[in-house]
Parts: sequence; structure tokens; C-alpha cells
Amino acid sequence: MEKLKPRTLSGFMELLPAPQQQMERMMDILRRTYALYGFTPLDTPLIEASEVLLAKGGGDTEKQIYRFTKGDADLSLRFDLTVPLAKYVALHYNDLAFPFRRYQIGKVYRGERAQRGRFREFYQADIDVIGDGKLDIVNEAEIPAIIYRTFTALGLRRFQIRVNNRKILNGFYAMMGLTEKSGDIMRTVDKLDKIGPEKVAACLRDDCGLTDDQAAEILRFIAITGDNAAVLAALRSYAGRNDTFDQGLAELETVVRHLGAFGVPEANFAVDLTIARGLDYYTGTVYETTLLDHPEIGSVCSGGRYDNLAEYYTDKQLPGVGISIGLTRLFYVLGEQNMLNDQLPTAPADVLVLPMTDDLSAAVALATALRDAGIRTQLYTEAKKFKAKMSYADKLAIPYVVFLGEDEIAAGTVTCKDMTSGEQTTLPFADTLSRIREGLRQREMGTVIREN
Amino acid sequence: MEKLKPRTLSGFMELLPAPQQQMERMMDILRRTYALYGFTPLDTPLIEASEVLLAKGGGDTEKQIYRFTKGDADLSLRFDLTVPLAKYVALHYNDLAFPFRRYQIGKVYRGERAQRGRFREFYQADIDVIGDGKLDIVNEAEIPAIIYRTFTALGLRRFQIRVNNRKILNGFYAMMGLTEKSGDIMRTVDKLDKIGPEKVAACLRDDCGLTDDQAAEILRFIAITGDNAAVLAALRSYAGRNDTFDQGLAELETVVRHLGAFGVPEANFAVDLTIARGLDYYTGTVYETTLLDHPEIGSVCSGGRYDNLAEYYTDKQLPGVGISIGLTRLFYVLGEQNMLNDQLPTAPADVLVLPMTDDLSAAVALATALRDAGIRTQLYTEAKKFKAKMSYADKLAIPYVVFLGEDEIAAGTVTCKDMTSGEQTTLPFADTLSRIREGLRQREMGTVIREN
Repeated sequence: MEKLKPRTLSGFMELLPAPQQQMERMMDILRRTYALYGFTPLDTPLIEASEVLLAKGGGDTEKQIYRFTKGDADLSLRFDLTVPLAKYVALHYNDLAFPFRRYQIGKVYRGERAQRGRFREFYQADIDVIGDGKLDIVNEAEIPAIIYRTFTALGLRRFQIRVNNRKILNGFYAMMGLTEKSGDIMRTVDKLDKIGPEKVAACLRDDCGLTDDQAAEILRFIAITGDNAAVLAALRSYAGRNDTFDQGLAELETVVRHLGAFGVPEANFAVDLTIARGLDYYTGTVYETTLLDHPEIGSVCSGGRYDNLAEYYTDKQLPGVGISIGLTRLFYVLGEQNMLNDQLPTAPADVLVLPMTDDLSAAVALATALRDAGIRTQLYTEAKKFKAKMSYADKLAIPYVVFLGEDEIAAGTVTCKDMTSGEQTTLPFADTLSRIREGLRQREMGTVIREN
Repeated sequence: MEKLKPRTLSGFMELLPAPQQQMERMMDILRRTYALYGFTPLDTPLIEASEVLLAKGGGDTEKQIYRFTKGDADLSLRFDLTVPLAKYVALHYNDLAFPFRRYQIGKVYRGERAQRGRFREFYQADIDVIGDGKLDIVNEAEIPAIIYRTFTALGLRRFQIRVNNRKILNGFYAMMGLTEKSGDIMRTVDKLDKIGPEKVAACLRDDCGLTDDQAAEILRFIAITGDNAAVLAALRSYAGRNDTFDQGLAELETVVRHLGAFGVPEANFAVDLTIARGLDYYTGTVYETTLLDHPEIGSVCSGGRYDNLAEYYTDKQLPGVGISIGLTRLFYVLGEQNMLNDQLPTAPADVLVLPMTDDLSAAVALATALRDAGIRTQLYTEAKKFKAKMSYADKLAIPYVVFLGEDEIAAGTVTCKDMTSGEQTTLPFADTLSRIREGLRQREMGTVIREN
């Protein structure tokens, strides 16, 4: 029979078992951390009716989308988790209690041009809090705490949560009489990190049509830096001239005021007036998170406050705040940077049981007892040479190999080899189990990400 | 703005938060149980090249598949987890150690005619053990143990793992000179439960072209029942006439012999000669699992031994054994039968913190302390009446509400209401935490499925 070359589509991440275990560990940490803040897990279909998914329409989204027909149905794969959330909340409005807090970790699809580190199928890990009509500012103040706990649990220390408020920017541009140009200005200012202040000033003049004075004023404004107290003090000097600005400043002060009680160290947080987030629908606090030693990665966790989640589906006013982690890309970048901790176990089993007798009953019973005790156990019964069996354990990095021969069965003992230290013990089952448990506990110490 | 009616496609399960928590619990149990047997988690793309996915081709599969083009690529959504596994093993052969044991819980897609309880997007939860060239029979003997532990962990007691061996059937039909008709015969016999022995006999004569004697002989054979020892004894009376039969009988005896050591009670296991599994590629032990009180559901966990996983992609001989649970359908049926335990917590949080003072600092710090202690905590700060706040906790079934007023802050205490008993305590934080932990531990007792 002629064989077909097996292949995985380009732009689709497919991991080998060991890195997959690292990915699972990261997902598990995200699930547990999100749950600590009262978010409930959701799982929505990957396929939606195209008219539902594309209600907003337009833009790059529509070009990148995987859209197709099945029978007479016009279908699309979801390209983010926000539109399905909007549909979900509008559809199930009467069954939900608000504020509605949900997390979702799921795959989304974008047919981008294939290039290294870009994925067409990728996980997003989102949380959102949705209010009914109103949503208190404390929900926005809590987001940095969630980001901080998440990245700390993953093992990162050197990261910074950068926060701004769109009302401050909108108010500031309104003071300057530049409201209609504020969108263009924010998109230009967003490039500051990449192109520097001089080119930003040039773009503000040439592309946005600002005067030299206006461009200089904007650059002075976004150049306000320092610790949180200093930035807030500088912002207060603009207060009293525009209601939106004043409201944004009050919100930002609330966010900063609660940081300590929320457990976020000042070192991991910065008010950053250059952050705007491109998306038009953010209306209040906006967030970006950068790794201090890897600014080239860009933001690894972003989001913000919006006023109207589901406006395409319902008249209900549903304000919310949310953040998203691009998990597949983050995992890829961490791997490239050698930041995934390969000291943590990635083996499919904790123990490999090698029967040394023809009658397998004792070995089977031993494997069952280990599983009853919660130890991940593989029973190896293939007809191979002893050396091949040991190299199987080695290749999979299984930490313990347990042998059961006539002597052990007669004596009621188990021989156990620690594959890391090479140490071999022959002890009763209970003692062997204790040693294995203690060894596993030590191997589990450490975090999934390590900073170099 | 005109609103678009939000809707979820028919045939796509989208759960409300409480049932979603039950589904998550089930998935978590499957993951942990599969891991206990040394299976490693895999995650493969939902989209594959159509030529890869349809290498085998033909049949209903091709009609039901979601197939589409993107640019010049011909793509399809996976319709099971077995074909992607075959591709994975063939593609990554050199990076894997064999036997390769993997589990995968993922969504698959089949564009079936929509009807109640039928899903077009559904989860399968698969395990497979893949050998390189050979695979020892003990792997087949271990499968009932995995099924038993899985369903027991979910909370089921009254289920039966029914096992047969295709070599016994093939050998028996070979003895009768009916090898070429064995496929048709097995498909007919498979209907025994539905249409009864008389109609099976009629079909064997009329559709398969057997004589009356042959049909009677087959019905005598598949009527062999009793406990495992009795069935094996009856089968031994056919031994010595056909090598394939004898080999199948030896395999079945091995499977039965190890049941006890693998921890499978005889009551949950039965040799059942009527089971064939429709798929042509099974070659040895085959498995079905039925709920004794709900035979109408059919098999909830099926699979078997096959000789050649990846024959379309590689010349390597890759025998394996695997089982699959149709998780979405199982969840749906359990819900219909009122078998999902609604006593287990489904709330998004364990504790709702209600600040009773204008200054929120103490309440924020309390929420942070609860989260540090691993308690899922929601801080509620919306400007609502007290009654609305309590009914929010009620609606979400959050088990504890914690109040923090001036008195508590001054006294260094916390007021905590148990929403189930109505009992309210005012105690120091550490004591409140202990009470909450103990209460949560008790609420977590019980299993996700309950038998009525």
C-alpha cells in the first residue's frame, strides 16, 4: 500500500509528550488561580453561526476567519473568546447572576500568514467580569491582583503590570480640543516603545495633523513617569478642566490605592500613560503586562474595561472588565527563551513496575496498590532485555523503577531504584511508598517557568 | 441599532455555569484516573489536512465530516481522536518511547442529522497503548481495571464491563468454514440485544446465506453464558480445532486471570460472546461497558485491540489497544436520567465577602488572605441593597458569606454566615477559616454521579 506522508498543518502547535506536560501544568495553574477569584469555567462551541460571530463585522478579523458552509449553514470558527462570551451572556441573560465572572481557556482560530512563532490555532486564557447596567470600579482594581498571582504562581518575578485609564487620555485630548483625533493619536502614541519620541512627534504632526505645540504637549504628557505617587501627583495638576479626565483620575487613584491590600507589590506595577490598547471598545482602565528581561516579547497579558459587551445582541447595557493571556504564544516564547523549567517531572508515570517472574500476579497487585495510593504507575510487561526496559524508563524520565522477583515476593519486600540518584533499596511496600512519595514531593518543588 | 438574535448552533452543547462545573469535575476525574495508569496527556489540532484525515476514506465518515478550504488548503475538522493519534505516532515515531501510552480528552466533529441527544460537536475521552511491532497481552488485561477505576471514581457501582475476543469469533467461524462471511455474521449477531435470537437466526439465513444448522450452531455458541469460569469452560470444549480460536481463548483466559490482581470485582465484569464491535480493525480483546439500570443507553465505554494503528502513514507495525468514552453524550444522558449529583458544589466561589464599611481596605485584605489560604473568594462591591447581595449568593449557591463591618474590624473578627444551615458566627479569621475549610471538605464528599 502506498503511504501518505503524515504531517501537521503549519501554524498549528502539536507538542511532544514532555512539553505537553509543561503546557498542562501551566493551564492547571491558570485554572486554579482564576478560580481563586470566583471565576467560573465556561466552554462554548468552537463553531458559531457566521452571522453571530461576525455581527460586528469588518476589519482584519473577517479576512483571517475560518468560514465555511455545511449543508445550508454558514459557519465560522471562533477567532477570540470575547464574541462567544457576548453571545453567551445575551443568550443566557435570564439564567445568570450579575456580576457574572467567568474564565475560559480555549482554542481560537485566525488564518494569519504563517511565520515562525505565529499560530493559526492557539489557546487564549480569558477572564471577564460582566455587570448588569453598572460595574463597580473595584472590579478594575482587582485585575492587577489576578495578574500578579497568576504570573507569580507560574514562577515569574521580574514582570510589570502596566496600567492606564482611557478616560484620562480621552479627557486630556478633549482639553486640547483633539477629541476627534484621539483615536489616531492613541494609535500613534502606542508606537512610542518601537519608534521613539521624535518619530512619534513627526507622525502626530504629519499623519494626525497636529501643530508642533500640540505634539510637544502630548509628548510632555506621556513622558510623565516615576513611581505611582509621582505620576498621580503630576496628573492632579491637570485636574478640574475636564470631567472625563477627572473621573479617569479618580478611577486610577482607586486602582492604585487598593494595590497593597490586594497583595500587589509596587515593584510589579506601574502607571504608564503611554498604554492605550488599540481596541476601540476599551473605556476605562487598560492593562498590559511585560517581562522586564524580555521587552521584545511585548505584552503577555492585556485587557481593560469596556462599557458594552453585547451591544450587537441585546439592548441591555453590559459593562465589563477582562484580560487575556495568549497562552500558545507565551508557551512558545518561553520555550525559545529557555525559560521552561525542565527540572519538573514530565514523565507519564512516577513508577515503572518491572515484573521479574513468569507469574505476573504479584506485580499486577503491586501496581494496583501503588495506584490505590495515588502513585501514577506503569506496569511494563513487554518481552525485552533488562537493559531495554531500563532505557525505556530513562527515555521517559520515569523517576522510580520497582522490581519484583522471587526473593522480594518471598520476603514481602519491593526493590526500588531511584533513577536520579541511582540508589536502590529493598524494603517493605509501605516504606517504599513513603520514599517514593517524599521523592516526588521534592521533585514537584519549583515552578513551571524559571527566570534565567 | 438593530439587534441580532444570539443563538448557539443546534447539536452543540453549551452549558450553564452550574452544569459546566459538573462537567469539569467529570473531566478532572478522567484525567487523574488515566494518569494513574501512566498515560500522558496529548493535545492535537482540531484541524488537519483533509488528505491526512481521510487517508482511510469512505463510509459515513466522509459524509459527516466538516471539510472546507482556506486559501488553497483542503482542511477538515477531526471526527475522532484515533486518526490524529495515528498521524501523531507516525510523524513523531522517532521521538516516542514504545509502548506509548496517551490519553486525550478533546472535541470532535460529525455533521450528523440533528436530533435530541445527538451532538455535532462532542468530547471524546480516549486512552490508547501503542506498541512498536508487538504489544503484550497484559495491556489488554489492564483495560478493564482502568474502566473499573474510572467509573467507580465517577460514582457508579452498577455497571458491567463486557469483554470478548475477536480471535475467538474469527476462529469459531473459521471452524465452520464461514470465514468469508464472518464480518456479515458479526454485524448480524451484534443486533441480538435489539431484535432477539429468532430474528437473528432469520437474518443469518436470509441475509448471510447460512443453513439452518449453521444458524443454530451460531446461536448455541453466542448463548453461552454464566460466570467467567463457566463461559471459559464451555469455550474450552471448542479448543484444539483452530489456531486462531485457541489463541483468542488463551488471551481471554489471561484477561480473566488477572482481574482480581487488577482490582476488578467479578460482579463488574462479564465475558460476553455476543460483543463484536462493528469496526473492522479490532483484532483481539473487545470491550463494552453498560449501566445495569440503563441498558437503553448502550455502551458508555468501548474499544479493543487492533494490529495496525497507522498503516496509512507508515510501514511500521504499530499494534495497540484503546478505549473511548463519549463524554458529551454520557453527560447528557446522565442529566436526562437525573444522575448528576446536585449536592456537590457548583458555585463559582466558596466565600462571598461583603464589605459593610465605606473604606474597603479591610475587606480587600480579607479577600486576599482567604485566597492566600486557597479559598475561592469573590469580593462583592456593587452598590446594591443588602437583600440583593444575599440573593446573589443564594442564586449562585455560594456556601459562605462573610461580613466585615466597623465592629468586626475593631475587634479583629469576621462574621461568617453558612448559607446552608443559616448559622452565623463572629470569630477571629483563623477560626473562621477552619470552619469554612471543614464545611467545604464535607460539601466535597460524594461523587459526581449518583445512582438512583
